[in-house]
Amino acid sequence: MALSGFPEWLPAGRQIELAITDTARRIFELHGFASIETRSVEPVAELLRKGEIDKEVYGVRRLQGEGDDDLALHFDLTVPLARYVVEHAGHLEFPFRRFQIQKVWRGERPQEGRFREFTQADIDIVGDGSLGVHHEIEMALVMTEVFAALPIPQAVISVNNRKLAEGFYRGVGAEDPALVLRAIDKLDKIGPAKVATLLQSDVGLSVAAANACLALADIRTTDLSFVDRVRALGVQNDLLDEGLDELSAVISGVHRENKAAVVANLRIARGLDYYTGTVYETELVGHESVGSICSGGRYDTLASVGNRVFPGVGISLGVTRLVSILLGRSLVSVSRSVPSAVLVAVNDEDGRSASAAVASTLRSRGIPCEIAAQPDKFGKQIRYAERRGIPFVWFLTDSGGEIKDIRSGDQTPADPATWVIPEDDRAPQVISTVSEEDS
Amino acid sequence: MALSGFPEWLPAGRQIELAITDTARRIFELHGFASIETRSVEPVAELLRKGEIDKEVYGVRRLQGEGDDDLALHFDLTVPLARYVVEHAGHLEFPFRRFQIQKVWRGERPQEGRFREFTQADIDIVGDGSLGVHHEIEMALVMTEVFAALPIPQAVISVNNRKLAEGFYRGVGAEDPALVLRAIDKLDKIGPAKVATLLQSDVGLSVAAANACLALADIRTTDLSFVDRVRALGVQNDLLDEGLDELSAVISGVHRENKAAVVANLRIARGLDYYTGTVYETELVGHESVGSICSGGRYDTLASVGNRVFPGVGISLGVTRLVSILLGRSLVSVSRSVPSAVLVAVNDEDGRSASAAVASTLRSRGIPCEIAAQPDKFGKQIRYAERRGIPFVWFLTDSGGEIKDIRSGDQTPADPATWVIPEDDRAPQVISTVSEEDS
Repeated sequence: MALSGFPEWLPAGRQIELAITDTARRIFELHGFASIETRSVEPVAELLRKGEIDKEVYGVRRLQGEGDDDLALHFDLTVPLARYVVEHAGHLEFPFRRFQIQKVWRGERPQEGRFREFTQADIDIVGDGSLGVHHEIEMALVMTEVFAALPIPQAVISVNNRKLAEGFYRGVGAEDPALVLRAIDKLDKIGPAKVATLLQSDVGLSVAAANACLALADIRTTDLSFVDRVRALGVQNDLLDEGLDELSAVISGVHRENKAAVVANLRIARGLDYYTGTVYETELVGHESVGSICSGGRYDTLASVGNRVFPGVGISLGVTRLVSILLGRSLVSVSRSVPSAVLVAVNDEDGRSASAAVASTLRSRGIPCEIAAQPDKFGKQIRYAERRGIPFVWFLTDSGGEIKDIRSGDQTPADPATWVIPEDDRAPQVISTVSEEDS
Repeated sequence: MALSGFPEWLPAGRQIELAITDTARRIFELHGFASIETRSVEPVAELLRKGEIDKEVYGVRRLQGEGDDDLALHFDLTVPLARYVVEHAGHLEFPFRRFQIQKVWRGERPQEGRFREFTQADIDIVGDGSLGVHHEIEMALVMTEVFAALPIPQAVISVNNRKLAEGFYRGVGAEDPALVLRAIDKLDKIGPAKVATLLQSDVGLSVAAANACLALADIRTTDLSFVDRVRALGVQNDLLDEGLDELSAVISGVHRENKAAVVANLRIARGLDYYTGTVYETELVGHESVGSICSGGRYDTLASVGNRVFPGVGISLGVTRLVSILLGRSLVSVSRSVPSAVLVAVNDEDGRSASAAVASTLRSRGIPCEIAAQPDKFGKQIRYAERRGIPFVWFLTDSGGEIKDIRSGDQTPADPATWVIPEDDRAPQVISTVSEEDS
């Protein structure tokens, strides 16, 4: 029975997911991020205290257990990281650079790209006391490298700053900027007219103030011109100034390395409450409706013990959402759904050992292979390989061995100790089906 | 707050876990097993129906959800695989060869090597209608290759057969062989005297029958001599004969390829109810008290739709238990806890871009590196690398660059486009601390 919101991929789909997580891990490690995993559960009180009121949390308890532990499945990897850092601070080196590729759970209504169980690939850098703004630049640059290495449409990271938004909202007279933020977060869903109404009725802004907030959310620039456009709205506030400076530093810092990677987008709000400065969201060009595939931000107050604070910044690739887009919209193809590059045929059951010896030699040279399950007629063994997408079949003959490329039909004598496999055939390939011009 | 039974590793411990799962995956793929993941939850009724009465199941429900779904976290990866095969049978090729590396949850009392959340690395082969015994041989051979590639003490796979045991128990007059099996499963915990009492009082066996069952459990041979030793106990039963034949076929089949890999051990029971023939357990020599690190068996009736049955065989590496033994008993060391091989020093904040360019060149050549977080004095930047175990520091000088090996103190001019890193320094190494002679 399929469960809505709990996706499972067939082996070919799983190859796509592995291509994404392998690529992400490779690039995270090249940038010196160390892997950790945190336990899947946290105390319920701890999760709810982090203000994650919008996401429905899954409680966990033993069906026949005494002493209920009041545990729940984590809804992201950032709150557990903050707890991990505080718990293990004495054993970690700061700034602590870690990546984490794990499942999270949210009891939201399932829809395209939105799941109840899904995998995230996060990087975070957590400082002890302070954390340089260059790490906020680094987040966007590392993820841009991941995007470039994946068979996906163009990804654009939008950056905003919570201080900028909060300062602006305070500047126009909002007493609770969080309420304004939540209303603005609904722009894509309900449109500007309804958000304007919300801002007046629920938040108590004047018509002019509501319009100013909507005008702010409309600012999206590929360079630093957002600063002049915000200034033109005529709002004065110290926190706004601080936010403008920080956002300028991030945008110009990223552009120094990679002009195309980011835009300043003052509509970005992020649902999560713990962000305190820079926030990121990422859209795939042509697939904006599915939502952000990579989000995060800076959090200065999430982790602390007494007077010791651990400010952090992180960004999270939505692996499951990305797989669902690539699969659901047929943006990639997979060359085969099994790792085997070679099927070693079996002449008869007594000859299985001889086939195993060939397979063993091929494997020792890094060539994945399997041995036919049954000593069927060769035509049937070839069809067995064909159905799996295995490109080569190895036959044991009196004079040694022969290898057949079942795509071309070519069959030639070969020695398992020296036969050279085309590099593209060694492992399954995940290939974009969209040409550069289309994307 | 640490939660008993929910282990978390520091970055160095996680390197050990990654070394295990990376090695397992590499060898599984060389043998043509395709990766899948199944969702973490199953309907409660489905899990309990599989007879898993001994393991406490964790229920899952939304804290603020309408329409409770009656879900629970899976306690192994075999029951979900059976459900996956039935659900997706139309899209799979049989025999279906898959590996699965995922977390499972059991609400048991935590103790050394026994956790409430832990990672397993499973391989299974599932047939459509029938499944050759050679796949039972293959399970042991593939896992033996994994063990040989890991920095662990010698691992010995014990093999038994449920039909052999059940036939024997029926032959001595037991009406419910499952009860005998459960009593025998307690041998290591409570000893033979108490098991004999149990077999008489709870199962209703005669003294002679109880002693025969204990004598059976005492048989452990490295060759096929177990057959004669069972025969010498004088019990006649058709199912016993079938079991003896199957176990002989597995032991001799494995020994044809690798003499040391398996022993016939007639004490092995396995707690899980779904096994119908061959069963496996694996002990690490010198660390037997921690229990099996790799277990499994053949299950002929776990998956079926109407008259269509999918017999399977699988074996599961207990990754978390293995990490806990290696860490807890200091059997391995890790060369460093971060991926970075090079720390690129920063002369001053304005020079960060120049340092980033060096790092970028090194990364394009597959050398993991990070850039110093602060433009501190060089001595402090070197200590920053030292604390992380990063072996090299790169300095930007007027004449280009210099690289310092901080272990030897040697500093030499170098070009990021051509500098050659010693292969052992490229990635963190997990090394056995136990010499071959000791183990």
